[in-house]
Amino acid sequence: MAARRIENIAILGTGLIGGSVGLALRRTGFAGRIVGWDRDRGQAEIAQERGAIGAVADDAFSAARQSDVIVLAGPVFSILEWMERLAPELTADQLVTDVGSVKSVVSQRAREWYGRPGRAAFLPGHPMSGKEVSGAANADAGLFDGAVWLFTPVGETAGAAAAALMEAWRLLVAGMGCRVLDLDAERHDELCAWVSHLPQMVSTAMSALLEDRFAGDADLRAIGGRALGEMTRLGASPYSMWRDIAHLNTEAIAESLLALEQRLAHVRENLRTPELREEFEQANRFRLGVREKGRNS
Amino acid sequence: MAARRIENIAILGTGLIGGSVGLALRRTGFAGRIVGWDRDRGQAEIAQERGAIGAVADDAFSAARQSDVIVLAGPVFSILEWMERLAPELTADQLVTDVGSVKSVVSQRAREWYGRPGRAAFLPGHPMSGKEVSGAANADAGLFDGAVWLFTPVGETAGAAAAALMEAWRLLVAGMGCRVLDLDAERHDELCAWVSHLPQMVSTAMSALLEDRFAGDADLRAIGGRALGEMTRLGASPYSMWRDIAHLNTEAIAESLLALEQRLAHVRENLRTPELREEFEQANRFRLGVREKGRNS
Repeated sequence: MAARRIENIAILGTGLIGGSVGLALRRTGFAGRIVGWDRDRGQAEIAQERGAIGAVADDAFSAARQSDVIVLAGPVFSILEWMERLAPELTADQLVTDVGSVKSVVSQRAREWYGRPGRAAFLPGHPMSGKEVSGAANADAGLFDGAVWLFTPVGETAGAAAAALMEAWRLLVAGMGCRVLDLDAERHDELCAWVSHLPQMVSTAMSALLEDRFAGDADLRAIGGRALGEMTRLGASPYSMWRDIAHLNTEAIAESLLALEQRLAHVRENLRTPELREEFEQANRFRLGVREKGRNS
Repeated sequence: MAARRIENIAILGTGLIGGSVGLALRRTGFAGRIVGWDRDRGQAEIAQERGAIGAVADDAFSAARQSDVIVLAGPVFSILEWMERLAPELTADQLVTDVGSVKSVVSQRAREWYGRPGRAAFLPGHPMSGKEVSGAANADAGLFDGAVWLFTPVGETAGAAAAALMEAWRLLVAGMGCRVLDLDAERHDELCAWVSHLPQMVSTAMSALLEDRFAGDADLRAIGGRALGEMTRLGASPYSMWRDIAHLNTEAIAESLLALEQRLAHVRENLRTPELREEFEQANRFRLGVREKGRNS
């Protein structure tokens, strides 16, 4: 399948991720038109000033209608809303994709609203990259370097135009420095609960606990080193970035949290028994695997 | 109080921390003699090859007897053992110090065995710096750069010679790139449970849990990004570095673990309620304080 040339891209939501997509597209040499829209026009203006988008759209609908590829880059509920609103407005030679952190619900809606005769195609996507800060001012052309960009294709019987656009979008994504990987949407949500959502909730809980106990304690702040910094870094993440994820992947996140609570209790009850050695050795095996992956990739 | 010149230093335990102390002393221009001893002679030989120590001692006792300052740099139980064995061998013009991660028990023993007439002085110390790997091969002259080196002085009525040696040792420590801070020993152990021991146990538990659930799962390894890497980095720490800490600071570590378990349960039960926003906002406040500390230091 030859990739169709993408000439016009609309980014709806020009915050941290949407802005970084624009900057990364420019860095990889994409020479077409990038128009951006954000519910908060100020964000789109910052994205434009920073070169992430070439123009600020006054109207998201007309920007979408004039584009080959529409990237939905807001929180997941806004992605779902735009999926529904745009579906009847677009045509079969257009591709809509997203960067949301939860994929089962996006894939379900994509099957409902897209990929049918006369409708645009939809390719659910998720770059495994982010920051603990939001906004176009923090967008970064290198945000996706070395990251994995996941797709959870909906298995539609897309027409040739749609298939060519998907192929072209995958090539652009790879050009942003990413390794592209396809996953089943349900498996995506389970794995992301463990590798992304659980770390966020742990970091938030630990930071909040420390604030309750030690707010303003200069000694605690002074002696905290790299371990504390890493474990609480994501504590800076704004709720606005996580509300939708917590609402939409609740079951998988709750399962991982419960498992960790039980594991911490096990450690606590065995601080002086040989079980603690087992726990450290099992943890060592996990990290050994992580390092081997690093060497092979 | 004029600092007495330190000419001879013995490091007992030349692994990651002891070796790094030697390298950092050399980097700061210390021109005296550094002799090293390790239960595992191979570690002392690596430390010598790397320039952390000038000579490998055949006998820890004679190395200690010939030194102005003796640095105990093994695990905490070995520190306690050497404190007891060396006390009757040393004299009032010598200083013993340590780098152990638990200080209440060290301070108690220091009051028993040191600082009395005819006895050497003891200054309990703890550099807030480390790695998830051990051994002289990983020692690093810059390990203490920007770190805090805590002391928990025992409040003894040391003689002038001891006081001058303590002052000289503090100056050398500052020269290694550290900020020196004095803390009460019990408070040290409580704060370190939160900023160091709890992060270690969480990282170990999370890594072990992931190994149980996903050992060999290539997708999980592929998509795990910075968040997973940071939260599990300390999972690589060997049990040998943590056994003594878990044995000697059990109560404070257990208290912090239980508090975190309860906090995670609270998050889990509120993934879809406004309580989650409160939790994120409280966490944000903690991280704001961390950043402000960074700006002021």
